[in-house]
Amino acid sequence: KVLWTVLVTILGYASSLPVGDDSICSAEELAKYRIIFTGKWSQTAFPKQYPLYRPPAQWSSLLGVTHSSDYSMWKKNEYASNGVRDFAEKGEAWGLMKEIEEAGEKIQSVHGIFSAPAISSGTGQTSTELEVHPRHPLVSFVVRIVPSPDWFVGIDSLNLCEGDHWMDEVSVDLYPYDAGTDSGFTFSSPNFATIPQDTVTEITCSSPSHPANSFYYPKLKILPPIAQVTMVKIKKSQLGLSAPYINLPAKSNEIIDSVS
Amino acid sequence: KVLWTVLVTILGYASSLPVGDDSICSAEELAKYRIIFTGKWSQTAFPKQYPLYRPPAQWSSLLGVTHSSDYSMWKKNEYASNGVRDFAEKGEAWGLMKEIEEAGEKIQSVHGIFSAPAISSGTGQTSTELEVHPRHPLVSFVVRIVPSPDWFVGIDSLNLCEGDHWMDEVSVDLYPYDAGTDSGFTFSSPNFATIPQDTVTEITCSSPSHPANSFYYPKLKILPPIAQVTMVKIKKSQLGLSAPYINLPAKSNEIIDSVS
Repeated sequence: KVLWTVLVTILGYASSLPVGDDSICSAEELAKYRIIFTGKWSQTAFPKQYPLYRPPAQWSSLLGVTHSSDYSMWKKNEYASNGVRDFAEKGEAWGLMKEIEEAGEKIQSVHGIFSAPAISSGTGQTSTELEVHPRHPLVSFVVRIVPSPDWFVGIDSLNLCEGDHWMDEVSVDLYPYDAGTDSGFTFSSPNFATIPQDTVTEITCSSPSHPANSFYYPKLKILPPIAQVTMVKIKKSQLGLSAPYINLPAKSNEIIDSVS
Repeated sequence: KVLWTVLVTILGYASSLPVGDDSICSAEELAKYRIIFTGKWSQTAFPKQYPLYRPPAQWSSLLGVTHSSDYSMWKKNEYASNGVRDFAEKGEAWGLMKEIEEAGEKIQSVHGIFSAPAISSGTGQTSTELEVHPRHPLVSFVVRIVPSPDWFVGIDSLNLCEGDHWMDEVSVDLYPYDAGTDSGFTFSSPNFATIPQDTVTEITCSSPSHPANSFYYPKLKILPPIAQVTMVKIKKSQLGLSAPYINLPAKSNEIIDSVS
């Protein structure tokens, strides 16, 4: 690994490194991004058991972190932390924020936390800013699917650094994950702890393979994306200041219409 | 006003100016604060009609802004903007974020937006960071009371600058406000638009003066605070970096117990 890193640096192949490897970022000191999360959980795209009342389909607050590869917020096929469990099951953010803070203090693996407001319907947008650093170029976040047993969407350790520069823009389609801590099958299943805890798994149109599952669509090959995230690097203005601190798309409904 | 400002500057009485006047802040360029919001909406303190199910008592995401006196997010006895109305009624943040952005672009009255994750119960905490600037030393924010017709808590234009320095710590008790846009009387009243729209009013134990009101406690002189907010200036570390980016109290439950 060390030899490979050195070799890559020498040969200048830095930008071809896989996502998630933050070992040789040599970009400028800090970069700011606007992150825009778009919910695409419509009744048209996901008709089965679509939650209409108490509560209707919606998204929790977005909670994210910028970090090095020494920290992991969550990872597919690994066990969720207690903080991720409480966030995915109940939308409780405090425990996860404490976990991130402790990782930041103990092993300096965290640059910052960011959060964006909840979205009160299945389709809609929210946004905030985040800051990355060459030693902390990775972005992870989670957003709880509401209502659901312990389902969420998110990003795990996306590297915004490409060798000697920061990426200008990244968009990623998001699909639902099961935190592995509650055995409910449907959006409104009552609480039913999974003991022993299971790992984080992706929910697909065929897995869990049971007709009762809310995302079970046997005629589909793959689910449509239930959400999307876009990160856009904020340009410095000619005055040396950040461009407008906030910079939201003009009309969120138009954007949603155009992509669905 | 101009003369008075000059006079005050000359005489050095800057620190005795009233809260909300940001005209002569001469503190260092930027200051960062950790803001901690504590919900105190317990069934013990507010037994009447306390919401236990679908949804139980909880708090929305916190949405805030740092700004100059040329911008106002909301103000007692004035009409709520459409953005504040949608946030107070439904927790929809996007419209309010757009309003803030437009104020920032048109009249440079905004420094930045900040948000903190929702709290999934009536008592609990959430936190984030904010940044102020001598030209934008005021802090405003809103948190929706869930469930409720259009009730919220918040701060309007709190000045963190005292003449030539930034305040180290500020704590404020918070009481419920009615956005004046929905005529519901109780936490779970159905939607019922107030036409014409009313102004933002504080809800007290005797006003609105009607026994059906969820906060009507005729035997009390004043309501207990339903929430509290604390802003603490983040010290720079000896390395010239910010102190740990996140710095949360040890155990949120202990803190809540000790104050209730």
